Amino acid sequence: MNVSQYVISVDAMGGDNAPAAIVAGAQAAVRTFGDIRLLLCGKREALEGAAGERISIIDAREVIEMEESPMIAVRKKTDSSLVRALMEVREGRAQAAVSAGSTGALLAGGMFKVGRIPGIDRPALAPVIPGLKGPVLLLDVGANVDCQPKFLNQFGLMGAAYMTGVLGIENPKVGLANIGTEEEKGNKLAKETHALMKNQTSYNFVGNVEAREIISGETQVVVFDGFDGNLILKYTEGLASAMSKMLKEELLRDARSKFGALFLKPALKRFKSRMDYREHGGAPLLGVDGALIKAHGSSDARAIETAIGQARNMIKNDVVGKIRAGVAGLSNPDDKGEK
Amino acid sequence: MNVSQYVISVDAMGGDNAPAAIVAGAQAAVRTFGDIRLLLCGKREALEGAAGERISIIDAREVIEMEESPMIAVRKKTDSSLVRALMEVREGRAQAAVSAGSTGALLAGGMFKVGRIPGIDRPALAPVIPGLKGPVLLLDVGANVDCQPKFLNQFGLMGAAYMTGVLGIENPKVGLANIGTEEEKGNKLAKETHALMKNQTSYNFVGNVEAREIISGETQVVVFDGFDGNLILKYTEGLASAMSKMLKEELLRDARSKFGALFLKPALKRFKSRMDYREHGGAPLLGVDGALIKAHGSSDARAIETAIGQARNMIKNDVVGKIRAGVAGLSNPDDKGEK
Repeated sequence: MNVSQYVISVDAMGGDNAPAAIVAGAQAAVRTFGDIRLLLCGKREALEGAAGERISIIDAREVIEMEESPMIAVRKKTDSSLVRALMEVREGRAQAAVSAGSTGALLAGGMFKVGRIPGIDRPALAPVIPGLKGPVLLLDVGANVDCQPKFLNQFGLMGAAYMTGVLGIENPKVGLANIGTEEEKGNKLAKETHALMKNQTSYNFVGNVEAREIISGETQVVVFDGFDGNLILKYTEGLASAMSKMLKEELLRDARSKFGALFLKPALKRFKSRMDYREHGGAPLLGVDGALIKAHGSSDARAIETAIGQARNMIKNDVVGKIRAGVAGLSNPDDKGEK
Repeated sequence: MNVSQYVISVDAMGGDNAPAAIVAGAQAAVRTFGDIRLLLCGKREALEGAAGERISIIDAREVIEMEESPMIAVRKKTDSSLVRALMEVREGRAQAAVSAGSTGALLAGGMFKVGRIPGIDRPALAPVIPGLKGPVLLLDVGANVDCQPKFLNQFGLMGAAYMTGVLGIENPKVGLANIGTEEEKGNKLAKETHALMKNQTSYNFVGNVEAREIISGETQVVVFDGFDGNLILKYTEGLASAMSKMLKEELLRDARSKFGALFLKPALKRFKSRMDYREHGGAPLLGVDGALIKAHGSSDARAIETAIGQARNMIKNDVVGKIRAGVAGLSNPDDKGEK
């Protein structure tokens, strides 16, 4: 086996539990994955003892805080742990980067430091939620508001490439989130996007998906304008937490329920964990010319290890290459010259 | 007490369980509410025996089916149970109408047969969902896609008037669904709408509401573009049903859980019923010049009785009048002349 085949840079200072959880997650990841090498970016003195056989330290003197303006922070803090990690990708010393820091800064840095894949207009943030029949990738969930139809068409390709490359789903079904299944349904954006998606040849478009069907898991990639996707993702968070609370209230309402609930602690814990999309790893930022993973801000070592594993699979299965190769099929060659 | 103060027309042929459930619901409603009189619209022979002291039959020979084009059906089927019910409102013989039939046909009929309140551009469909701290009205959930900022500003007024008039909530908090709480967040529509809402004087605008906060019930009216509101509402349906399934799976996974679950049947039933927004009555179509209630298609007699009660409260507390009176305050008089 070719040791250290995949090089991943890690923002060691990003996230609520940085740097301790990031370092612990990195150390766990190199034990789990024999074929990765990690570049930990952060203040050298804060990362003391973290370096090892397949972990190197890259000294970065600045940290981008959550409340900073992402665009300004990424432009000015060139010695920040995030920008250093991204520059490793840009300059070809790493093929992937992982950060649990500011989402906005990762988006800005992905766009302006790493750069887009040729033919892709906008990168998209693409978390996976647990559907009844399997995982569902939602994109975009907030990197872009006011999308154009061609952005959404590109999202379809990007989502399909990720689901094939990282989750091993061959020819995943891609749907457009809409208020009805019929082709003529929806707002102006949805109608124009539907027409583009129907005519491309790069991925398996199955038509409009009504929101009540998303969680079924029948359609593995669901495409949204970033404004709508963000509403849906955050609503999921709120609803899952509210439903846990309501359930708890009902279980404690009378003696009979209380008695039964005693036996249910493990089952209820499993239920809560299934509903929590944050336990299902980080979200890739797709469309940039490298494998970028946004780990949740509250990530512990286990979550960081999972996110590093996702980055590894993105490299190993060449998700960027799959997107690059699919761009040509986004507009139907038969349509050329007519427009 | 002034008997038969409130006259409500009822589409007796609309919905999965029509006409039997509609007739039974109407009969229950006149027993519950001593101050209403009902006009049951439908085929006379199908409604045999339904007439009574405060229930009259209005013969209507046609029925609008679910799969018909709403606009065409409403225009052509002038002798349908729905159009007859709406014409009773238009011509002043009833102040409210209830239908469990096609949502699209009710929207088209509300707009073109009953007509809008002066100063309101678009009617909005406004269901109530159960929040943790109390009911939350969502509008619009699908009557209008591609909204303009002024439509959303009007929705804020309409939602507040309904929550005050029908649910008795004084000065309800009205929020704009958005991807962040800061004023400058969101897409073009959200930013422009925020500016209008901030400057109006007709209702209590509390700013942007992130989707994860909707279900908390802190904000009693949440305003959406109809496309987004429809996604959120249908997603709620799907998620509630998926979560019940996941919970059931976890409860049946091992012997210990199965034993505990035996004691939990009533608690789990209460939980399911709390999550089901359809049990919380029909949705008003706000902004039309009459009190129109869309009952769920699968309504049973109890749901129809509830919907008739909502229509009664809309009349009794003059929701239409409150909306009419609020229109003047939608644009800040101080801004006049500057634009």
